[in-house]
Amino acid sequence: MATLHSYPFCPQSRFARLALAELGVEPDLVEEKPWDRRVPYLEINPAGNLPLLVDDNGLAVPGPRIIADYLDETRGEDMRDRRLLPQPLDARIEVRRLIDWFLVKFHEEVTDYLATEKIYKRFMPSDLGGGSPDMGAIRAARTNVRYHLKYVGFLISTRNWLAGDHMTYADLAAAAHFSVVDYLGDVPWDENETAKHWYARIKSRPSFRALLTDRVPGMAPADHYDNLDF
Amino acid sequence: MATLHSYPFCPQSRFARLALAELGVEPDLVEEKPWDRRVPYLEINPAGNLPLLVDDNGLAVPGPRIIADYLDETRGEDMRDRRLLPQPLDARIEVRRLIDWFLVKFHEEVTDYLATEKIYKRFMPSDLGGGSPDMGAIRAARTNVRYHLKYVGFLISTRNWLAGDHMTYADLAAAAHFSVVDYLGDVPWDENETAKHWYARIKSRPSFRALLTDRVPGMAPADHYDNLDF
Repeated sequence: MATLHSYPFCPQSRFARLALAELGVEPDLVEEKPWDRRVPYLEINPAGNLPLLVDDNGLAVPGPRIIADYLDETRGEDMRDRRLLPQPLDARIEVRRLIDWFLVKFHEEVTDYLATEKIYKRFMPSDLGGGSPDMGAIRAARTNVRYHLKYVGFLISTRNWLAGDHMTYADLAAAAHFSVVDYLGDVPWDENETAKHWYARIKSRPSFRALLTDRVPGMAPADHYDNLDF
Repeated sequence: MATLHSYPFCPQSRFARLALAELGVEPDLVEEKPWDRRVPYLEINPAGNLPLLVDDNGLAVPGPRIIADYLDETRGEDMRDRRLLPQPLDARIEVRRLIDWFLVKFHEEVTDYLATEKIYKRFMPSDLGGGSPDMGAIRAARTNVRYHLKYVGFLISTRNWLAGDHMTYADLAAAAHFSVVDYLGDVPWDENETAKHWYARIKSRPSFRALLTDRVPGMAPADHYDNLDF
Protein backbone atom coordinates (compact mmCIF):
# COMPACT_ATOMS: atom_id res chain seq x y z
CA MET A 1 0.00 0.00 0.00
CA ALA A 2 1.38 3.41 -0.94
CA THR A 3 1.46 6.20 1.65
CA LEU A 4 1.33 9.91 0.95
CA HIS A 5 2.65 12.22 3.65
CA SER A 6 0.64 15.32 2.97
CA TYR A 7 -1.52 18.12 4.33
CA PRO A 8 -5.12 18.63 3.17
CA PHE A 9 -4.68 22.30 2.21
CA CYS A 10 -1.11 22.15 0.97
CA PRO A 11 -1.51 22.69 -2.80
CA GLN A 12 1.56 20.59 -3.63
CA SER A 13 0.02 17.70 -1.66
CA ARG A 14 -3.23 18.17 -3.57
CA PHE A 15 -1.36 17.93 -6.87
CA ALA A 16 0.08 14.55 -5.86
CA ARG A 17 -3.33 13.35 -4.63
CA LEU A 18 -4.91 14.22 -7.98
CA ALA A 19 -2.10 12.53 -9.91
CA LEU A 20 -2.36 9.37 -7.82
CA ALA A 21 -6.14 9.29 -8.17
CA GLU A 22 -5.96 9.73 -11.95
CA LEU A 23 -3.58 6.75 -12.05
CA GLY A 24 -5.90 4.66 -9.91
CA VAL A 25 -3.59 4.59 -6.88
CA GLU A 26 -5.32 5.07 -3.52
CA PRO A 27 -2.62 5.84 -0.97
CA ASP A 28 -2.97 6.01 2.78
CA LEU A 29 -2.87 9.70 3.63
CA VAL A 30 -0.66 10.57 6.60
CA GLU A 31 -1.06 14.13 7.77
CA GLU A 32 2.15 16.13 8.07
CA LYS A 33 1.86 19.76 9.14
CA PRO A 34 3.92 21.95 6.79
CA TRP A 35 5.24 24.08 9.67
CA ASP A 36 6.05 21.21 12.00
CA ARG A 37 9.46 19.93 10.79
CA ARG A 38 9.08 16.70 12.81
CA VAL A 39 12.37 14.85 13.17
CA PRO A 40 10.97 11.46 12.06
CA TYR A 41 9.70 13.14 8.89
CA LEU A 42 13.02 14.90 8.24
CA GLU A 43 14.72 11.52 8.54
CA ILE A 44 12.85 10.25 5.48
CA ASN A 45 12.75 13.64 3.71
CA PRO A 46 15.68 15.84 4.81
CA ALA A 47 14.41 18.87 2.86
CA GLY A 48 11.16 18.66 4.86
CA ASN A 49 8.93 19.72 1.98
CA LEU A 50 5.54 18.19 1.18
CA PRO A 51 4.30 15.83 -0.06
CA LEU A 52 6.33 12.62 0.22
CA LEU A 53 5.18 9.42 -1.45
CA VAL A 54 6.30 6.12 0.05
CA ASP A 55 5.41 3.63 -2.65
CA ASP A 56 4.48 0.02 -1.97
CA ASN A 57 7.99 -1.00 -3.13
CA GLY A 58 9.39 1.00 -0.19
CA LEU A 59 10.87 3.85 -2.26
CA ALA A 60 10.46 7.32 -0.71
CA VAL A 61 9.80 9.99 -3.33
CA PRO A 62 10.01 13.60 -2.10
CA GLY A 63 8.30 16.66 -3.56
CA PRO A 64 5.53 17.14 -6.11
CA ARG A 65 7.61 17.23 -9.29
CA ILE A 66 9.75 14.25 -8.42
CA ILE A 67 6.57 12.32 -7.57
CA ALA A 68 5.11 13.29 -10.95
CA ASP A 69 8.20 12.05 -12.81
CA TYR A 70 8.33 8.88 -10.71
CA LEU A 71 4.67 8.08 -11.32
CA ASP A 72 5.14 8.63 -15.03
CA GLU A 73 8.17 6.34 -15.08
CA THR A 74 6.42 3.59 -13.11
CA ARG A 75 2.79 3.88 -14.29
CA GLY A 76 2.81 6.22 -17.29
CA GLU A 77 2.95 3.72 -20.12
CA ASP A 78 -0.24 1.97 -19.06
CA MET A 79 -2.13 5.23 -19.54
CA ARG A 80 -1.43 5.25 -23.32
CA ASP A 81 -2.92 8.42 -24.84
CA ARG A 82 -4.18 9.57 -21.43
CA ARG A 83 -0.58 9.71 -20.18
CA LEU A 84 -0.20 12.67 -17.81
CA LEU A 85 3.29 13.39 -19.12
CA PRO A 86 2.88 12.73 -22.84
CA GLN A 87 5.67 11.16 -24.90
CA PRO A 88 6.44 13.70 -27.67
CA LEU A 89 9.39 15.91 -26.69
CA ASP A 90 7.64 19.21 -27.35
CA ALA A 91 4.60 18.15 -25.32
CA ARG A 92 6.81 17.09 -22.40
CA ILE A 93 8.50 20.49 -22.37
CA GLU A 94 5.17 22.28 -22.41
CA VAL A 95 3.69 20.13 -19.64
CA ARG A 96 6.80 20.58 -17.49
CA ARG A 97 6.86 24.31 -18.17
CA LEU A 98 3.29 24.59 -16.87
CA ILE A 99 3.93 22.25 -13.92
CA ASP A 100 6.67 24.71 -12.87
CA TRP A 101 4.42 27.66 -13.65
CA PHE A 102 1.86 26.52 -11.09
CA LEU A 103 3.98 24.64 -8.54
CA VAL A 104 6.61 27.38 -8.39
CA LYS A 105 5.36 30.72 -9.75
CA PHE A 106 1.69 30.53 -8.83
CA HIS A 107 2.72 29.09 -5.47
CA GLU A 108 5.10 31.97 -4.74
CA GLU A 109 2.73 34.66 -5.99
CA VAL A 110 -0.63 33.35 -4.78
CA THR A 111 -1.13 30.05 -2.94
CA ASP A 112 1.74 30.26 -0.49
CA TYR A 113 0.51 33.64 0.77
CA LEU A 114 -3.13 32.60 1.04
CA ALA A 115 -2.65 29.12 2.50
CA THR A 116 -0.14 30.43 5.04
CA GLU A 117 -2.00 33.56 6.08
CA LYS A 118 -5.56 32.26 6.05
CA ILE A 119 -5.17 28.58 6.96
CA TYR A 120 -1.79 27.52 8.38
CA LYS A 121 -1.51 30.48 10.76
CA ARG A 122 -4.73 29.41 12.50
CA PHE A 123 -3.08 26.19 13.60
CA MET A 124 0.59 27.14 13.95
CA PRO A 125 1.90 27.80 17.45
CA SER A 126 2.69 31.49 17.87
CA ASP A 127 6.43 30.87 18.25
CA LEU A 128 6.43 29.38 14.74
CA GLY A 129 4.60 32.36 13.24
CA GLY A 130 0.98 31.52 14.03
CA GLY A 131 -1.54 34.29 14.70
CA SER A 132 -3.54 36.78 12.74
CA PRO A 133 -3.13 37.01 8.98
CA ASP A 134 -0.99 39.64 7.24
CA MET A 135 -3.52 41.56 5.15
CA GLY A 136 -0.79 42.93 2.86
CA ALA A 137 0.18 39.41 1.82
CA ILE A 138 -3.47 38.51 1.23
CA ARG A 139 -4.02 41.60 -0.92
CA ALA A 140 -0.90 40.82 -2.99
CA ALA A 141 -2.13 37.29 -3.62
CA ARG A 142 -5.61 38.52 -4.60
CA THR A 143 -4.07 40.88 -7.13
CA ASN A 144 -1.73 38.23 -8.54
CA VAL A 145 -4.41 35.55 -8.94
CA ARG A 146 -6.22 37.69 -11.51
CA TYR A 147 -3.24 37.60 -13.87
CA HIS A 148 -2.94 33.82 -13.53
CA LEU A 149 -6.67 33.39 -14.14
CA LYS A 150 -6.27 35.37 -17.34
CA TYR A 151 -3.32 33.20 -18.36
CA VAL A 152 -5.40 30.02 -17.88
CA GLY A 153 -8.17 31.60 -19.96
CA PHE A 154 -5.65 32.52 -22.65
CA LEU A 155 -4.23 28.98 -22.85
CA ILE A 156 -7.67 27.35 -22.85
CA SER A 157 -8.88 29.65 -25.62
CA THR A 158 -6.31 27.98 -27.91
CA ARG A 159 -6.34 24.40 -26.59
CA ASN A 160 -8.67 21.80 -25.12
CA TRP A 161 -6.60 21.42 -21.95
CA LEU A 162 -3.83 23.61 -20.53
CA ALA A 163 -0.91 21.95 -22.32
CA GLY A 164 -2.70 20.63 -25.41
CA ASP A 165 -5.42 18.23 -26.57
CA HIS A 166 -5.31 15.96 -23.53
CA MET A 167 -5.49 16.46 -19.81
CA THR A 168 -1.99 16.34 -18.30
CA TYR A 169 -0.07 17.09 -15.12
CA ALA A 170 -0.30 20.76 -16.16
CA ASP A 171 -4.06 20.73 -15.53
CA LEU A 172 -3.66 18.87 -12.24
CA ALA A 173 -0.99 21.30 -11.01
CA ALA A 174 -3.12 24.32 -11.88
CA ALA A 175 -6.33 22.82 -10.49
CA ALA A 176 -4.63 21.75 -7.24
CA HIS A 177 -3.50 25.31 -6.63
CA PHE A 178 -6.74 26.96 -7.72
CA SER A 179 -8.68 24.58 -5.47
CA VAL A 180 -7.02 25.94 -2.33
CA VAL A 181 -7.63 29.53 -3.42
CA ASP A 182 -11.19 28.63 -4.35
CA TYR A 183 -11.92 27.16 -0.91
CA LEU A 184 -11.05 30.60 0.46
CA GLY A 185 -13.33 32.33 -2.06
CA ASP A 186 -10.42 34.25 -3.57
CA VAL A 187 -10.70 33.28 -7.24
CA PRO A 188 -12.66 35.95 -9.18
CA TRP A 189 -14.10 33.35 -11.57
CA ASP A 190 -16.56 35.82 -13.10
CA GLU A 191 -13.65 37.72 -14.63
CA ASN A 192 -12.87 34.83 -16.96
CA GLU A 193 -15.59 32.47 -18.17
CA THR A 194 -13.14 30.38 -20.22
CA ALA A 195 -10.97 29.64 -17.18
CA LYS A 196 -14.08 28.99 -15.08
CA HIS A 197 -15.33 26.48 -17.61
CA TRP A 198 -11.96 24.66 -17.59
CA TYR A 199 -12.06 24.49 -13.78
CA ALA A 200 -15.64 23.17 -13.77
CA ARG A 201 -14.54 20.40 -16.15
CA ILE A 202 -11.60 19.27 -14.06
CA LYS A 203 -13.45 19.69 -10.77
CA SER A 204 -16.08 17.21 -12.01
CA ARG A 205 -13.55 14.40 -12.37
CA PRO A 206 -13.73 11.54 -9.87
CA SER A 207 -10.10 12.28 -8.89
CA PHE A 208 -11.27 15.60 -7.46
CA ARG A 209 -13.95 14.22 -5.13
CA ALA A 210 -11.78 13.68 -2.06
CA LEU A 211 -10.39 17.21 -2.27
CA LEU A 212 -13.88 18.68 -2.28
CA THR A 213 -14.78 16.96 0.99
CA ASP A 214 -11.77 18.36 2.92
CA ARG A 215 -12.68 21.01 5.45
CA VAL A 216 -10.58 23.48 7.44
CA PRO A 217 -11.80 23.06 11.04
CA GLY A 218 -13.87 26.12 11.97
CA MET A 219 -13.78 27.63 8.47
CA ALA A 220 -16.45 26.84 5.88
CA PRO A 221 -15.48 26.87 2.20
CA ALA A 222 -16.80 29.42 -0.29
CA ASP A 223 -20.43 28.57 -1.21
CA HIS A 224 -19.61 27.24 -4.66
CA TYR A 225 -16.51 25.25 -3.55
CA ASP A 226 -18.00 21.76 -3.91
CA ASN A 227 -20.73 22.69 -6.39
CA LEU A 228 -19.90 21.03 -9.69
CA ASP A 229 -22.10 23.43 -11.71
CA PHE A 230 -20.88 26.60 -10.04
CA MET B 1 23.62 25.21 -33.18
CA ALA B 2 22.10 25.29 -29.71
CA THR B 3 21.74 28.59 -27.86
CA LEU B 4 21.68 29.06 -24.10
CA HIS B 5 20.11 32.26 -22.82
CA SER B 6 21.97 32.68 -19.57
CA TYR B 7 23.90 34.97 -17.23
CA PRO B 8 27.50 34.22 -16.23
CA PHE B 9 26.90 34.41 -12.48
CA CYS B 10 23.40 32.98 -12.38
CA PRO B 11 23.94 29.60 -10.68
CA GLN B 12 21.04 27.98 -12.56
CA SER B 13 22.65 29.05 -15.85
CA ARG B 14 25.96 27.57 -14.67
CA PHE B 15 24.24 24.25 -13.97
CA ALA B 16 22.96 24.10 -17.55
CA ARG B 17 26.37 25.10 -18.93
CA LEU B 18 28.04 22.28 -17.00
CA ALA B 19 25.42 19.75 -18.12
CA LEU B 20 25.78 20.78 -21.77
CA ALA B 21 29.58 20.65 -21.58
CA GLU B 22 29.52 17.19 -19.99
CA LEU B 23 27.33 16.05 -22.89
CA GLY B 24 29.68 17.57 -25.45
CA VAL B 25 27.23 20.28 -26.55
CA GLU B 26 28.78 23.73 -27.04
CA PRO B 27 25.94 26.24 -27.21
CA ASP B 28 26.13 29.86 -28.20
CA LEU B 29 25.76 31.79 -24.96
CA VAL B 30 23.38 34.74 -25.14
CA GLU B 31 23.53 36.99 -22.10
CA GLU B 32 20.20 37.68 -20.44
CA LYS B 33 20.22 39.83 -17.31
CA PRO B 34 18.13 38.15 -14.59
CA TRP B 35 16.56 41.44 -13.51
CA ASP B 36 15.81 42.74 -16.99
CA ARG B 37 12.55 40.98 -17.97
CA ARG B 38 13.02 41.94 -21.64
CA VAL B 39 9.83 41.51 -23.65
CA PRO B 40 11.48 39.50 -26.48
CA TYR B 41 12.79 37.09 -23.85
CA LEU B 42 9.41 36.82 -22.12
CA GLU B 43 7.92 35.96 -25.50
CA ILE B 44 9.99 32.77 -25.67
CA ASN B 45 9.96 32.14 -21.91
CA PRO B 46 6.86 33.68 -20.28
CA ALA B 47 8.04 32.84 -16.75
CA GLY B 48 11.19 34.87 -17.43
CA ASN B 49 13.48 32.58 -15.43
CA LEU B 50 16.98 31.58 -16.50
CA PRO B 51 18.41 29.74 -18.29
CA LEU B 52 16.58 28.90 -21.51
CA LEU B 53 17.98 26.40 -24.00
CA VAL B 54 16.99 26.74 -27.64
CA ASP B 55 18.14 23.48 -29.13
CA ASP B 56 19.24 23.09 -32.75
CA ASN B 57 15.86 21.45 -33.51
CA GLY B 58 14.21 24.76 -32.56
CA LEU B 59 12.66 23.59 -29.29
CA ALA B 60 12.80 26.15 -26.46
CA VAL B 61 13.42 24.51 -23.08
CA PRO B 62 12.95 26.78 -20.05
CA GLY B 63 14.54 26.44 -16.62
CA PRO B 64 17.39 24.33 -15.24
CA ARG B 65 15.45 21.21 -14.26
CA ILE B 66 13.44 20.99 -17.46
CA ILE B 67 16.69 21.40 -19.41
CA ALA B 68 18.24 18.56 -17.38
CA ASP B 69 15.30 16.25 -18.12
CA TYR B 70 15.27 17.25 -21.78
CA LEU B 71 19.00 16.64 -22.20
CA ASP B 72 18.65 13.26 -20.56
CA GLU B 73 15.76 12.35 -22.84
CA THR B 74 17.59 13.46 -25.99
CA ARG B 75 21.25 12.64 -25.19
CA GLY B 76 21.22 10.51 -22.04
CA GLU B 77 21.33 7.04 -23.55
CA ASP B 78 24.58 7.72 -25.41
CA MET B 79 26.29 8.39 -22.07
CA ARG B 80 25.76 4.76 -20.93
CA ASP B 81 27.13 4.35 -17.39
CA ARG B 82 28.17 8.03 -17.29
CA ARG B 83 24.53 9.05 -17.67
CA LEU B 84 23.87 12.18 -15.61
CA LEU B 85 20.38 10.94 -14.68
CA PRO B 86 21.00 7.23 -14.15
CA GLN B 87 18.41 4.64 -15.13
CA PRO B 88 17.59 2.75 -11.88
CA LEU B 89 14.49 4.16 -10.21
CA ASP B 90 16.06 4.65 -6.79
CA ALA B 91 19.07 6.43 -8.30
CA ARG B 92 16.81 8.75 -10.30
CA ILE B 93 14.91 9.71 -7.16
CA GLU B 94 18.14 10.43 -5.29
CA VAL B 95 19.62 12.49 -8.14
CA ARG B 96 16.40 14.49 -8.51
CA ARG B 97 16.16 14.98 -4.75
CA LEU B 98 19.63 16.52 -4.75
CA ILE B 99 19.01 18.57 -7.89
CA ASP B 100 16.10 20.14 -6.01
CA TRP B 101 18.20 20.46 -2.87
CA PHE B 102 20.70 22.68 -4.63
CA LEU B 103 18.59 24.40 -7.30
CA VAL B 104 15.80 25.23 -4.85
CA LYS B 105 16.90 25.02 -1.21
CA PHE B 106 20.56 26.06 -1.50
CA HIS B 107 19.46 28.77 -3.96
CA GLU B 108 16.88 30.19 -1.56
CA GLU B 109 19.13 29.97 1.49
CA VAL B 110 22.51 30.91 0.02
CA THR B 111 23.13 31.68 -3.66
CA ASP B 112 20.15 33.90 -4.35
CA TYR B 113 21.12 36.21 -1.47
CA LEU B 114 24.80 36.36 -2.38
CA ALA B 115 24.46 36.66 -6.16
CA THR B 116 21.76 39.32 -5.81
CA GLU B 117 23.39 41.38 -3.07
CA LYS B 118 27.02 41.16 -4.15
CA ILE B 119 26.80 40.87 -7.96
CA TYR B 120 23.44 41.71 -9.54
CA LYS B 121 22.87 44.85 -7.47
CA ARG B 122 26.07 46.39 -8.89
CA PHE B 123 24.55 46.34 -12.35
CA MET B 124 20.83 46.73 -11.70
CA PRO B 125 19.30 50.18 -12.22
CA SER B 126 18.28 51.68 -8.88
CA ASP B 127 14.56 51.61 -9.75
CA LEU B 128 14.82 47.82 -10.09
CA GLY B 129 16.54 47.44 -6.72
CA GLY B 130 20.17 48.14 -7.60
CA GLY B 131 22.50 49.77 -5.08
CA SER B 132 24.42 48.79 -2.00
CA PRO B 133 24.16 45.25 -0.66
CA ASP B 134 21.96 44.27 2.30
CA MET B 135 24.47 43.03 4.87
CA GLY B 136 21.76 41.13 6.77
CA ALA B 137 21.05 38.99 3.71
CA ILE B 138 24.77 38.36 3.19
CA ARG B 139 25.23 37.31 6.80
CA ALA B 140 22.27 34.92 6.58
CA ALA B 141 23.73 33.31 3.46
CA ARG B 142 27.16 32.96 5.07
CA THR B 143 25.59 31.19 8.04
CA ASN B 144 23.48 28.90 5.85
CA VAL B 145 26.33 27.86 3.55
CA ARG B 146 28.14 26.16 6.46
CA TYR B 147 25.27 23.73 6.96
CA HIS B 148 25.16 22.88 3.27
CA LEU B 149 28.93 22.38 3.20
CA LYS B 150 28.57 19.93 6.05
CA TYR B 151 25.78 18.13 4.17
CA VAL B 152 28.03 17.72 1.10
CA GLY B 153 30.79 16.39 3.37
CA PHE B 154 28.34 13.98 4.97
CA LEU B 155 27.13 12.63 1.60
CA ILE B 156 30.67 12.32 0.19
CA SER B 157 31.84 10.46 3.29
CA THR B 158 29.48 7.63 2.31
CA ARG B 159 29.67 7.79 -1.49
CA ASN B 160 32.08 8.52 -4.32
CA TRP B 161 29.92 11.30 -5.74
CA LEU B 162 26.95 13.16 -4.24
CA ALA B 163 24.21 10.78 -5.38
CA GLY B 164 26.20 7.54 -5.61
CA ASP B 165 29.11 5.86 -7.40
CA HIS B 166 29.01 8.04 -10.50
CA MET B 167 29.00 11.74 -11.17
CA THR B 168 25.45 12.94 -11.90
CA TYR B 169 23.36 16.07 -12.26
CA ALA B 170 23.42 16.24 -8.45
CA ASP B 171 27.14 17.05 -8.50
CA LEU B 172 26.70 19.57 -11.31
CA ALA B 173 23.85 21.33 -9.49
CA ALA B 174 25.83 21.56 -6.27
CA ALA B 175 29.06 22.61 -7.99
CA ALA B 176 27.31 25.26 -10.08
CA HIS B 177 25.93 26.86 -6.93
CA PHE B 178 29.11 26.52 -4.89
CA SER B 179 31.09 28.05 -7.76
CA VAL B 180 29.20 31.35 -7.51
CA VAL B 181 29.65 31.46 -3.74
CA ASP B 182 33.31 30.50 -4.15
CA TYR B 183 33.96 33.37 -6.58
CA LEU B 184 32.83 35.66 -3.78
CA GLY B 185 35.11 33.95 -1.25
CA ASP B 186 32.15 32.92 0.91
CA VAL B 187 32.66 29.15 1.14
CA PRO B 188 34.54 28.26 4.35
CA TRP B 189 36.23 25.26 2.69
CA ASP B 190 38.61 24.70 5.60
CA GLU B 191 35.67 23.67 7.76
CA ASN B 192 35.18 20.52 5.71
CA GLU B 193 38.06 18.80 3.96
CA THR B 194 35.82 16.08 2.51
CA ALA B 195 33.58 18.61 0.78
CA LYS B 196 36.64 20.59 -0.36
CA HIS B 197 38.13 17.50 -1.93
CA TRP B 198 34.89 16.76 -3.79
CA TYR B 199 34.82 20.32 -5.14
CA ALA B 200 38.48 20.12 -6.24
CA ARG B 201 37.63 16.97 -8.20
CA ILE B 202 34.68 18.44 -10.02
CA LYS B 203 36.36 21.80 -10.58
CA SER B 204 39.18 20.01 -12.43
CA ARG B 205 36.84 18.67 -15.09
CA PRO B 206 37.08 20.18 -18.58
CA SER B 207 33.38 21.12 -18.34
CA PHE B 208 34.30 23.57 -15.57
CA ARG B 209 36.94 25.53 -17.49
CA ALA B 210 34.69 28.13 -19.04
CA LEU B 211 33.09 28.93 -15.68
CA LEU B 212 36.48 29.58 -14.14
CA THR B 213 37.33 32.21 -16.75
CA ASP B 214 34.16 34.30 -16.15
CA ARG B 215 34.81 37.58 -14.36
CA VAL B 216 32.47 40.09 -12.72
CA PRO B 217 33.56 43.45 -14.16
CA GLY B 218 35.39 45.39 -11.47
CA MET B 219 35.38 42.53 -8.96
CA ALA B 220 38.19 39.99 -8.79
CA PRO B 221 37.39 36.44 -7.68
CA ALA B 222 38.67 34.93 -4.43
CA ASP B 223 42.37 34.01 -4.79
CA HIS B 224 41.79 30.27 -5.05
CA TYR B 225 38.76 30.53 -7.40
CA ASP B 226 40.47 29.22 -10.53
CA ASN B 227 43.24 27.31 -8.77
CA LEU B 228 42.65 23.61 -9.37
CA ASP B 229 44.78 22.55 -6.38
CA PHE B 230 43.30 25.04 -3.90
